[in-house]
Amino acid sequence: MSKYFSKKFDALEAYVPGEQPQDQKYIKLNTNESPFDPPRAVIPVIKDQSRKLRLYSDPESRELTQAVADYYGLEFDNVMVTNGSDEALNYAFLAFADDETPVVFPEITYGFYKVIATLNNIPYEEISLRDDFTIDVREYEGIGKTICLANPNAPTGIALSLEEIEQIVRTNPDNIIIVDEAYVDFGARSAVPLLYRYDNLLVTQTFSKSRSLAGGRLGFILGAKELIDDLKILKNSTNPYNVNRMTAAAGVVTLRENTYFKNSCQSIQFNRRYTQRALEELGFRVLPSSANFLFVRTDRISGEDLYLALKEKGVLVRHFSDPKISDWVRVTIGTKTQMDVFLSKVEEIFVEQDREQSKGE
Amino acid sequence: MSKYFSKKFDALEAYVPGEQPQDQKYIKLNTNESPFDPPRAVIPVIKDQSRKLRLYSDPESRELTQAVADYYGLEFDNVMVTNGSDEALNYAFLAFADDETPVVFPEITYGFYKVIATLNNIPYEEISLRDDFTIDVREYEGIGKTICLANPNAPTGIALSLEEIEQIVRTNPDNIIIVDEAYVDFGARSAVPLLYRYDNLLVTQTFSKSRSLAGGRLGFILGAKELIDDLKILKNSTNPYNVNRMTAAAGVVTLRENTYFKNSCQSIQFNRRYTQRALEELGFRVLPSSANFLFVRTDRISGEDLYLALKEKGVLVRHFSDPKISDWVRVTIGTKTQMDVFLSKVEEIFVEQDREQSKGE
Repeated sequence: MSKYFSKKFDALEAYVPGEQPQDQKYIKLNTNESPFDPPRAVIPVIKDQSRKLRLYSDPESRELTQAVADYYGLEFDNVMVTNGSDEALNYAFLAFADDETPVVFPEITYGFYKVIATLNNIPYEEISLRDDFTIDVREYEGIGKTICLANPNAPTGIALSLEEIEQIVRTNPDNIIIVDEAYVDFGARSAVPLLYRYDNLLVTQTFSKSRSLAGGRLGFILGAKELIDDLKILKNSTNPYNVNRMTAAAGVVTLRENTYFKNSCQSIQFNRRYTQRALEELGFRVLPSSANFLFVRTDRISGEDLYLALKEKGVLVRHFSDPKISDWVRVTIGTKTQMDVFLSKVEEIFVEQDREQSKGE
Repeated sequence: MSKYFSKKFDALEAYVPGEQPQDQKYIKLNTNESPFDPPRAVIPVIKDQSRKLRLYSDPESRELTQAVADYYGLEFDNVMVTNGSDEALNYAFLAFADDETPVVFPEITYGFYKVIATLNNIPYEEISLRDDFTIDVREYEGIGKTICLANPNAPTGIALSLEEIEQIVRTNPDNIIIVDEAYVDFGARSAVPLLYRYDNLLVTQTFSKSRSLAGGRLGFILGAKELIDDLKILKNSTNPYNVNRMTAAAGVVTLRENTYFKNSCQSIQFNRRYTQRALEELGFRVLPSSANFLFVRTDRISGEDLYLALKEKGVLVRHFSDPKISDWVRVTIGTKTQMDVFLSKVEEIFVEQDREQSKGE
């Protein structure tokens, strides 16, 4: 850090995004991207917008905002679109948590929450998971603080039921509950229907996973008009033109191509079950996932060694150094072919390990 | 504001971006966009990237970052690219100003500075301009605070010389000087050469004006490696994938197409001189502009009335309600044809005004 850097950031450790090698030599199962391209219909609308780049994008992204509202049965004023859902989460923390209202989230969850709390000088508390990595909803009932929950949780993949989410929202009427649904389309129940009845709930989603637009940067946040208005004040004060023209147009198209979307999500779920069974046959422990990834461990090899051995064989998975989960790796679900390569590489690693061990004996 | 909104934002007034009607029925001379499309070579690279949208963009935007570094004779580590230069300015304020180190900027300047200072809870001071709207450099010498200067200034268009910028940088060695060069390509001298000699200087630029990519959202910040490293910590903590794939690729192309760029900037300068002369003939006072806009006033009609009358006639210009400049309007320089329409509408307004007055007599 330079001598000029504000002392207020002494405690900040930057979020470290997953590796993004640009040379495509790896099978990338490390950052939960979709293995499927967005619908082809995005290409002509992007091209059309690429001819209008000299003009600013619409700061309200009206067409896209209305399309999101229509898709979820909400009004225009219940939606704000953002440059990825990280931007939405950052504004939500900033708007609805402070010294008087700390934010709470599970001890094991998306690492970004801790970073944005620290960055924004917001006190936070982490609540332990049960031994089986599930969230104990009772710990959040009537807690009187801002709550942020990823549902399904990351990197576990385990989902809460809609009833459990409602229980938390209902018992904290004076506080904001943020439900981060980045992975909800792969098998969990969305909290969107609760928005019709509760004005202390915010739901974030992203186009980066189930809608195959990670490289376009698009997310959104849904909630009561009053909450969205507050968030818009922060957005307009930092990043008024937050979504670029091309991505906004592509977002509209992906919402329209709903059959393609449903089929993509179903393929991921099919491949997830397939991969889970195969890993269990290889002796892995696999958490029950409702997301487009599996969180897995084996007694045969440490999480870090498995990550490194797979990387050597051209398959990238995600390993976290946090000691509470350092035995585990997170494997994004790709195409069936990709998962077959992944599984065969795991088998190879085990065979090589056996060979080394028998040599050593 | 909702009852949940953090009290820390009680004083925040959101920045209000200029009108962005999406129906193209206006001649838009209100938000300083380029009247010229980006070079045609951006279209195929955007199309190419539109086929890779399922993958995250490179969080470091390495190819683009290197291209910016090469263009300005700097190293990779001296550059961070951002989602518009507003994002860069926000990180720079956040990183290098706080309770102990307030930020100072001119009383009349880009309205965003005040907003991001307030948002980030950073105390700020505004320094008056001289009566002729010029900045008195002596007021910034050895001031011992973080300084932010738009050069050329907005909305005046008046530029400081390189020597004046250096004087400020040199006399404040323990503080960061941020020079916002959003409009520098239209006739001012860039402070980039000072980066080779001073490690307390940051320069921001944007692709939104001279490079015709407003709708793509792209800017950058240049400075000593240590400062850029600090800014990257903040970027990675809020918006790790800040620049989308398509825009990053388009940015590389626009840097390469340098003749096109130079010609665009020259056309704007030509049209600016042409418009200035014509307005002066109509009795306007026009500030000496080094930017792609003119800041003008006339005794014949108030700034607001001129803005409204032009809007009625299909020409959008920018009016600011701040009483210190409410007599003025800011007119973006477009094509010669656009400026001729603008000038003829001003004449029409004056003729109509004369007719009304003679009726009243």
